Amino acid sequence: MANRAGVSTATVSRALRGLPSVAEGTRLRIVRIARELDYTITPSASRLASGRTQTIAVVAPYVNRWFFGQLIVGIEEVLRAKGFDLLLYNLADAVSRDRFFEAMPLRRRVDGVAVLSMPLSEEQAATLSGLGVPLGLVGAEVDGFACVRIDDVAGATSAMRHLVMLGHRDIAHICGGGPVAHSFTTPRDRSRAYREVLHEAGIGYRPELEAVGDYTVAGGERAMSTLLSGATRPTAVFAQSDEMAFGALQAIRRSGLRVPDDISLVGFDNHELADVLELTTVEQPVAEQGNLIAQILVDLLESGGEPPPTMTLPTRLVVRGSTRPVQATPHQTVNGGRTGSD
Amino acid sequence: MANRAGVSTATVSRALRGLPSVAEGTRLRIVRIARELDYTITPSASRLASGRTQTIAVVAPYVNRWFFGQLIVGIEEVLRAKGFDLLLYNLADAVSRDRFFEAMPLRRRVDGVAVLSMPLSEEQAATLSGLGVPLGLVGAEVDGFACVRIDDVAGATSAMRHLVMLGHRDIAHICGGGPVAHSFTTPRDRSRAYREVLHEAGIGYRPELEAVGDYTVAGGERAMSTLLSGATRPTAVFAQSDEMAFGALQAIRRSGLRVPDDISLVGFDNHELADVLELTTVEQPVAEQGNLIAQILVDLLESGGEPPPTMTLPTRLVVRGSTRPVQATPHQTVNGGRTGSD
Repeated sequence: MANRAGVSTATVSRALRGLPSVAEGTRLRIVRIARELDYTITPSASRLASGRTQTIAVVAPYVNRWFFGQLIVGIEEVLRAKGFDLLLYNLADAVSRDRFFEAMPLRRRVDGVAVLSMPLSEEQAATLSGLGVPLGLVGAEVDGFACVRIDDVAGATSAMRHLVMLGHRDIAHICGGGPVAHSFTTPRDRSRAYREVLHEAGIGYRPELEAVGDYTVAGGERAMSTLLSGATRPTAVFAQSDEMAFGALQAIRRSGLRVPDDISLVGFDNHELADVLELTTVEQPVAEQGNLIAQILVDLLESGGEPPPTMTLPTRLVVRGSTRPVQATPHQTVNGGRTGSD
Repeated sequence: MANRAGVSTATVSRALRGLPSVAEGTRLRIVRIARELDYTITPSASRLASGRTQTIAVVAPYVNRWFFGQLIVGIEEVLRAKGFDLLLYNLADAVSRDRFFEAMPLRRRVDGVAVLSMPLSEEQAATLSGLGVPLGLVGAEVDGFACVRIDDVAGATSAMRHLVMLGHRDIAHICGGGPVAHSFTTPRDRSRAYREVLHEAGIGYRPELEAVGDYTVAGGERAMSTLLSGATRPTAVFAQSDEMAFGALQAIRRSGLRVPDDISLVGFDNHELADVLELTTVEQPVAEQGNLIAQILVDLLESGGEPPPTMTLPTRLVVRGSTRPVQATPHQTVNGGRTGSD
């Protein structure tokens, strides 16, 4: 086959795997000859010979949310160009996660693993390390993993400072929920920024202005309904994700109030629909984080060595129509936000 | 290992793969013993023995769009419960599709393939058939594939009739674009319904009221801008997907018009955010289509036999705030929609 095409066996292999390193003319010629010869590559044989599976596992909690879809496409782009396949594990609940880590279906099936913004216990991180393959993590930092993330504290701080600078002091917070894992710092970091900016502005922290939204539209709507039924109606809301902010918007409208006239709203992500919904938000580069973690895993496989230092990508506040200066209205607490312990 | 746990080898295997058919107490006991013995299952060995890879490939065009995310989660749920892994191929452009079908990375790697709402040429369908494994298709029908779909003509007809019954006659259409493949009937069926309902209502078809939106938010926005710059301003728009309708909504607002006061708008899908954006739309069961195609593939693997007849799931019109009766306004063409050839 290689003889007939006048190229090396490696080139034949690369061409039939669709790798971009083969010139288009050469590739088409090899494919034509392969068809004439009814030649098929036998992946399992070549993989057993090399000890490689040419497969990377991606482990994610919620494949059907915007953020994860963008990340996966970003990863897949790089892997396909490099001739790797993507094995996808969507582990939405604690039970499926526990079973996954107990059964470890990845053993001898993959050359590397990317974990996407998912809580990992120390034991789970150790189980993955036991696979002896390069490991990547998006959204946090764990020893032994190559990590790509944003600065969640800086991003949330920019959102909160924007609200404070518009004069808001009764600022509610829709946060992520669930048990805190040592490796999943996103909810904790964004919550820390919420409290730090309040403190910086001399505003007391009031737990009744916080509600859990689970990073979903429905969760954001529930959280906002809870906040609206409380004693202090907030003049502004910081939601830890755009999807929660969309749900909050819905709850605010349903209660007969308007954004931004009655309540200003800031999200986090710059979701594809944030512009349509005129949502002020913190933009993070999502597909780029996917590209990067895939590239790092491929590099580690090709060149060996230790994981590179954590890469932290920048965020950016995008101001749209959902935020405006606070309006003095009769129903506001006169002393709102200035009391309370901190 | 099986002796020590007092169960069959098959039960050990099922327990370590996390299959739900093993009682929880038994599973935990087996996992504990396996850890004590430092026992690992060797998937490649057991797979080579059975000739099975316990892997299903999912081939999709746009993993980061809402519809595909829902489908993939629906598929993954069933596969995980049955002990199958999911190999994901996101083929967003013609070049990546061509390379994929030429290189056929699936050969000897998978037990089955599910193709999600993607154009397949006859040659590509034949290439997949050549794999000799069960094949599934969501969104269309191709010989030799198990097919799960909705009735696109019926769904689009319900959307169009709703607009006609509200008195609209200048009804624009934001359709899918790109080359038509023999297996990808979604854009064609929905377009057919658009014309058939116009005909049924005695409204002439006017090509200048159609624009291509590529099923994306940005594409819908561009299509709507084109429609708004035409000679006849439509009083209503039918968009073939909610994401295109969201983009259209944005373009309508940007041009200083309002939905539904100036223009009524109907989408297709019942996207998670259709409710927040108050969009009237045609609901289709998406995760359910994913569940079904996965279940059919697993059944075919377990029991053999021919693919079952195509399963067609129902759609439902969901009326929200984006549609209202047409308003007689001075700028409307008096004879609008009643002329023209059909």
